[in-house]
Amino acid sequence: MRFSFTLDATDGAARTGRIDTPRGAIRTPAFMPVGTAATVKAMLPEQVAETGADILLGNTYHLMLRPGAERVARLGGLHRFMNWDRPILTDSGGFQVMSLADLRKLTEEGVTFRSHVDGSKHVLTPERSMEIQRLLGSDIVMCFDECPALPATEERVAEAMRLSMRWAERSREAFGDRPGHALFGIQQGGVTRALREESAEALKSIGFEGYAIGGLAVGEGQEAMFGVLDYAPAMLPEDRPRYLMGVGKPDDILGAVKRGVDMMDCVLPTRSGRTGQAWTRRGQVNLRNARHAEDPRPLDEGCTCPACRGYSRAYLHHVVRAGEMIAGMLLTAHNLQYYQDLMAGMRGAIAEGRFAAFEADFHALRAEGDIERL
Amino acid sequence: MRFSFTLDATDGAARTGRIDTPRGAIRTPAFMPVGTAATVKAMLPEQVAETGADILLGNTYHLMLRPGAERVARLGGLHRFMNWDRPILTDSGGFQVMSLADLRKLTEEGVTFRSHVDGSKHVLTPERSMEIQRLLGSDIVMCFDECPALPATEERVAEAMRLSMRWAERSREAFGDRPGHALFGIQQGGVTRALREESAEALKSIGFEGYAIGGLAVGEGQEAMFGVLDYAPAMLPEDRPRYLMGVGKPDDILGAVKRGVDMMDCVLPTRSGRTGQAWTRRGQVNLRNARHAEDPRPLDEGCTCPACRGYSRAYLHHVVRAGEMIAGMLLTAHNLQYYQDLMAGMRGAIAEGRFAAFEADFHALRAEGDIERL
Repeated sequence: MRFSFTLDATDGAARTGRIDTPRGAIRTPAFMPVGTAATVKAMLPEQVAETGADILLGNTYHLMLRPGAERVARLGGLHRFMNWDRPILTDSGGFQVMSLADLRKLTEEGVTFRSHVDGSKHVLTPERSMEIQRLLGSDIVMCFDECPALPATEERVAEAMRLSMRWAERSREAFGDRPGHALFGIQQGGVTRALREESAEALKSIGFEGYAIGGLAVGEGQEAMFGVLDYAPAMLPEDRPRYLMGVGKPDDILGAVKRGVDMMDCVLPTRSGRTGQAWTRRGQVNLRNARHAEDPRPLDEGCTCPACRGYSRAYLHHVVRAGEMIAGMLLTAHNLQYYQDLMAGMRGAIAEGRFAAFEADFHALRAEGDIERL
Repeated sequence: MRFSFTLDATDGAARTGRIDTPRGAIRTPAFMPVGTAATVKAMLPEQVAETGADILLGNTYHLMLRPGAERVARLGGLHRFMNWDRPILTDSGGFQVMSLADLRKLTEEGVTFRSHVDGSKHVLTPERSMEIQRLLGSDIVMCFDECPALPATEERVAEAMRLSMRWAERSREAFGDRPGHALFGIQQGGVTRALREESAEALKSIGFEGYAIGGLAVGEGQEAMFGVLDYAPAMLPEDRPRYLMGVGKPDDILGAVKRGVDMMDCVLPTRSGRTGQAWTRRGQVNLRNARHAEDPRPLDEGCTCPACRGYSRAYLHHVVRAGEMIAGMLLTAHNLQYYQDLMAGMRGAIAEGRFAAFEADFHALRAEGDIERL
């Protein structure tokens, strides 16, 4: 089976459809839980699947350092290694090598750096990134790119974008012919429309199975991000999936889908779950807060997750305060369920042409408030 | 339904049977996973049930301090609070107040101490311990006792035992009439046979639904423990369950069952699971060890737990090294499964009169060795 994208319906700029891969279908708009080090933190993979996730994201940077891409390949690939048989998207390592590694040195060739795990020296180039992602067995491979840290001058952003476009060409070349697998290009250009246009044109002239919007959600704020999303998705081919990297909070996700994004990923639901934070239809809830100590109600009575089916807020408060692992396990399960429910809700709304009503309800429930009033 | 114990078969001193309670049956010999703070660490309760556990242990000391017994009662009791509807045994708090609390002061009346959580002042007496265990909704309640730290002189051990017997009488009186719930007396007396006899007689003259053997597994060593177990169980009524508190490693458990023990509890399988240690039919395995890094085999190919069904030793090694929560989740599930499988194996062997052969196989497989040769 080949990798393919089918657009089923649109509602304004919002789209719903399906990506087919040999490992299964990905319903879009899709939210991809992050499984950085071959695990979605605090979750068993079957529990992730139960939330409705069709695809996970794995981090090339982390996996190349530990346990190592060649080792994962010898053990049968990342799917088998982590016991997840549905699609996996891997990032290229480009973003994280710049934010996590030590002593990095950037050249036209690539990036040389030291591991934050053990200090060992490594090189990442477009060619090596493609090789690592192939060894991992990734279904959706990302081009190796440079995403400059903000704040950055427009000149610096332009320079990084143009380097990323040259690397995109090398990535495409190195990726080769791999039926059933996809390579996505990454649009850069910061918040500058002309640079976004230049980047989109460069990527389209190379040609990819999908297109990501990179360089957002890096501190520019929601308004600036939505400003870019008002025009950037339309610069990319309509018949290919559009992936907004590293986004975001529920309202970021809704705003991105509204503007034509098909795929997203973010550590927020998993990370929040490990610090006592829950995301619900009525907003964010801090379970550490004393007001939950005697509350017999579930976190969200409309939610089907294990936390909401089996436990009171009082219990969640107790295990958060006591530092018990079950707190992270239950709240992560809840947060991922909420995110997947949000995606399913948007898919249904787009298919039925009622996205505007869905959006209004989303904001009304959050404004009506606080979880206290459930 | 009343609390009752049925002895189904014996093989030498070893016994198998069933404890019936309104919340379900407990097959004996039984191993009780420890759910100290209203959670079996790193496990969801349905996962604990899947291992075959019929009953959990909860710690009165921890629960009285956080979230508090009155709060648990207001929230519907411990079973509902922690989402576990099968039987729960609670200890009395006596052992842990002496090992964990600050500034404790022991009198005939009870123990005054400061919480290790927040420094607040508390009093535990036989009457208060019974009240707390009633508020929690415990199915099997333990008498409040004093277990002296070792090494201790025989005089000190005798003194603590006699105080515990006076407290046992007060516990029985305070427990009252609670159909469907059981109160267990605790034999003390260290490793001195005459004191064990005196304690057993005192308890029998009061009368309990079950009898625990306390004051062992506190540093005396397996040989000394087995020395006591060679005579202590026979001092207790044959028609009541016998519970050996805080034991132990797999070979401790087998030796205790061989000597007539029906119930045990220990933090070992759960605690080990959170530090990369696995218990298997072939002995203990440290997953942190580099020899597992490329090993594609499961931890134990004969095991049905989620860790052995879905993952290689290489994966377990990776997540242990990376400090991922899934390491504790999978290894705890494995260890509890191994413990329950061991109990089920012993129950079957006793029922079929082949306990000696079971014991020989148990030791042969461990001697044959190392997990490497699986």
